Amino acid sequence: MAKELTSRVNDYSQWYNDLVIKGGLADYSSVRGCMVIKPYGYAIWEKMRDALDKMFKDTGHVNAYFPLFIPKSFLSREAAHVEGFAKECAVVTHYRLKTSPDGKGVVVDPEARLEEELIVRPTSETIIWNSYKNWIQSYRDLPILINQWANVVRWEMRTRLFLRTAEFLWQEGHTAHATAQEAIEETERMLEVYAAFAEQYMALPVIRGKKTPNERFAGALETYCIEAMMQDGQALQAGTSHFLGQNFAKAFDVQFLNKEGKLEYVWATSWGVSTRLIGALIMAHSDDDGLILPPKLAPLQVVVVPITRGEDDMKKICERVEPLIRELKAKGISVSLDDDDTKRPGFKFAEYELRGVPVRLAMGMRDYENNTIEIARRDTKEKSVQPLDGAASYIENLLSEIQRNIFERAKQFRDSHIREANSWEEFQQLIEQPGFIRAHWDGTPETEEKIKELTKATIRCIPLNNPTEQGKCVFSGNPSRERVIFARAY
Amino acid sequence: MAKELTSRVNDYSQWYNDLVIKGGLADYSSVRGCMVIKPYGYAIWEKMRDALDKMFKDTGHVNAYFPLFIPKSFLSREAAHVEGFAKECAVVTHYRLKTSPDGKGVVVDPEARLEEELIVRPTSETIIWNSYKNWIQSYRDLPILINQWANVVRWEMRTRLFLRTAEFLWQEGHTAHATAQEAIEETERMLEVYAAFAEQYMALPVIRGKKTPNERFAGALETYCIEAMMQDGQALQAGTSHFLGQNFAKAFDVQFLNKEGKLEYVWATSWGVSTRLIGALIMAHSDDDGLILPPKLAPLQVVVVPITRGEDDMKKICERVEPLIRELKAKGISVSLDDDDTKRPGFKFAEYELRGVPVRLAMGMRDYENNTIEIARRDTKEKSVQPLDGAASYIENLLSEIQRNIFERAKQFRDSHIREANSWEEFQQLIEQPGFIRAHWDGTPETEEKIKELTKATIRCIPLNNPTEQGKCVFSGNPSRERVIFARAY
Repeated sequence: MAKELTSRVNDYSQWYNDLVIKGGLADYSSVRGCMVIKPYGYAIWEKMRDALDKMFKDTGHVNAYFPLFIPKSFLSREAAHVEGFAKECAVVTHYRLKTSPDGKGVVVDPEARLEEELIVRPTSETIIWNSYKNWIQSYRDLPILINQWANVVRWEMRTRLFLRTAEFLWQEGHTAHATAQEAIEETERMLEVYAAFAEQYMALPVIRGKKTPNERFAGALETYCIEAMMQDGQALQAGTSHFLGQNFAKAFDVQFLNKEGKLEYVWATSWGVSTRLIGALIMAHSDDDGLILPPKLAPLQVVVVPITRGEDDMKKICERVEPLIRELKAKGISVSLDDDDTKRPGFKFAEYELRGVPVRLAMGMRDYENNTIEIARRDTKEKSVQPLDGAASYIENLLSEIQRNIFERAKQFRDSHIREANSWEEFQQLIEQPGFIRAHWDGTPETEEKIKELTKATIRCIPLNNPTEQGKCVFSGNPSRERVIFARAY
Repeated sequence: MAKELTSRVNDYSQWYNDLVIKGGLADYSSVRGCMVIKPYGYAIWEKMRDALDKMFKDTGHVNAYFPLFIPKSFLSREAAHVEGFAKECAVVTHYRLKTSPDGKGVVVDPEARLEEELIVRPTSETIIWNSYKNWIQSYRDLPILINQWANVVRWEMRTRLFLRTAEFLWQEGHTAHATAQEAIEETERMLEVYAAFAEQYMALPVIRGKKTPNERFAGALETYCIEAMMQDGQALQAGTSHFLGQNFAKAFDVQFLNKEGKLEYVWATSWGVSTRLIGALIMAHSDDDGLILPPKLAPLQVVVVPITRGEDDMKKICERVEPLIRELKAKGISVSLDDDDTKRPGFKFAEYELRGVPVRLAMGMRDYENNTIEIARRDTKEKSVQPLDGAASYIENLLSEIQRNIFERAKQFRDSHIREANSWEEFQQLIEQPGFIRAHWDGTPETEEKIKELTKATIRCIPLNNPTEQGKCVFSGNPSRERVIFARAY
């Protein structure tokens, strides 16, 4: 096998990189920190996008598109926001090139300098609220429930394919409301949409929670998040939903006449998930042989590999499986027949395992004679021989079963890797093991910072519906009323 | 009516701008030359994108995503290409802002200057062929049939909503082939896909042709195009498909081992359509009362307006039309019931006309008693009263009829506005009238330039399957073997 991966035990991080590259999901580019999303990776993103887009529309949202560029002065309008993003943004200063003096290339034309520099959007609150100012006059114009699918740029210094790249694809919802209550409900609704998507499509169990003030989005009053556990026990933030209060409305002077005829500032939310989810998907489920994809997001759900010794056999087998393929397609299942006779079945098996195709069918001449087919599932690698009659229903059920099993497996792994630390000693010990820690915290940013400094663990979230429990902060010993989730994170 | 439009006769250009703004399709932004695509405009783009995406996939293409930024040096590699794009591109020179000395805003951090400037992609040939270099070794790696949906930036000085904006959305296909023949076939195949999309979805008749060398894409050996006529008789280029020869393969040193074991440069095509098509759609069909949208691209195909004098009537009518709505939805027709009792029916009618909803249903109490419904079509404004039983089928047929009628009307208009000019005098006269001119041309760029200078008319294309006809160039009198299409253009 030319495509062998580093094993997870040997080097989890290298295993991930190998898998992304060898699985044909993404590639490095010549631009620092930017990646190429290859067709197979992009096909997964399309599946994610389509499922999320439907969920957004089902909850009353519409899509729109706002400019890529943000005038520099817009960023400064919201103090916390500019603080959060100014240090990592791509700045457009000129709008023209010209032939270089030596005639061998092009140089920036110094005469084409912009009066005001433009920032390539790291997120679009400012440019969008600048438009909302013109769109909102009265309570009748509210709510505005807009989502945007777009690329954004954050000039990260340390990048990793999918997980952290200078440019990434995402969606960002930006809603405007007449009351705080309504905006908070929206924030919570969208967190639940993200959680449902993660669990039902990505087969990824998540903890719903709120961020501590330290970890909030720059400009938010409250940041909700979903946190997932990867196979190395580290946390990955899989989506965030922000209650922005009236911060952006004030920064861009967006007021509306309420039902009582009084001017009021508009309430805002924003929420987003990105191509980072592809990284989460890979790291949560896959193994040393390649990707394990949940059927609902697999670009190809079923592949059929004939096992033959010549053209005649190939033709016979292809004819025999054709009705099954047709039946699967009629059920909305994506299926492909691999009749390429220049590659051996063993090579193909490894290739489809690498790519995470959930179900692989194989038929040799013995199956042909018995009218049976071999059905192998990617998640457990179990195989069984089934009668060809009724195989379509069997496979349909199997795909549901795989989707369920991947989720359960990830949930079991996660649940068995959440431990309680009740002393600082215990905390220091547990943090060296894979997993999350539930521990008491005194609620101060100072303690949070100190713990991070000493252990690299951050507070991932304060879970929603967290049970109240009297206790003492694991670090300071000060009183605490609930446990929060600590972990090292991507 | 607050939303009255300038009429086409009074000021076609102002009519277009009014319609885009008042129809809720797009808005100006605070960034020079960049627009906001509003939800209704974006919904049309989603319909276009989905239809095109399916056509691309049906012809064997897959989607991928390449970086937004192109290193400056990449652009220079292909001489004609850089010449074509260097003068209108956004240049990123820095990657960080910092607090300004007065503490009141942010300034570009001079220490965060990029070693090599990055260009915001105006088109992606260079960044993509730089990747293809790593992906192609042998003929077995070919063809590569990739498409990308993306935003691009061309720093246009004179912009118009949808038609010409600094940033726009588009798709760009970039394919790699082992032979010139195969690449030419691909170029022609994609032109035909564009033509089919324009005619079948946009109801827009187009002329398929080739550009003259002057008008070719920067870096192409041959540019194919589809050209459409707007209601003012001007031409609009609605899509292009380029045969790039081996130009980009040579610029990025992309060679492959052919079947004979010899190294050869790869053959390339690229092809694209953009949000400009929304401008074409508007200008080709709409009237002084608003948009006329072909049903296949209308975000909302049918609207139901109850005509009532109170809550009781409203309730009765809503109940009565509910089965029809369900039936229409089951047929895959998008339909919405407007039961907002704060707006009068007349206001609603005007609003839906402005928005170009193809079919408007109305039911008052007389209809209720007679079990009938009023059906109005947007394209001709004809109304008829139909029995409620069987109305769903009637409407389904009507939508097809509207799609057909809009196309036929546009085709009739176009065909009656293509005239032949057989002398320079005649040419000068005809070019002042709306429409295209078929005329002989001597094949030289000098004549083409001169005609453009004198009349603002350009050669839109040399039609495919153009009949051979001996004649004399309308300008120079030199011999010519075929007529080409001249027009003023958007």
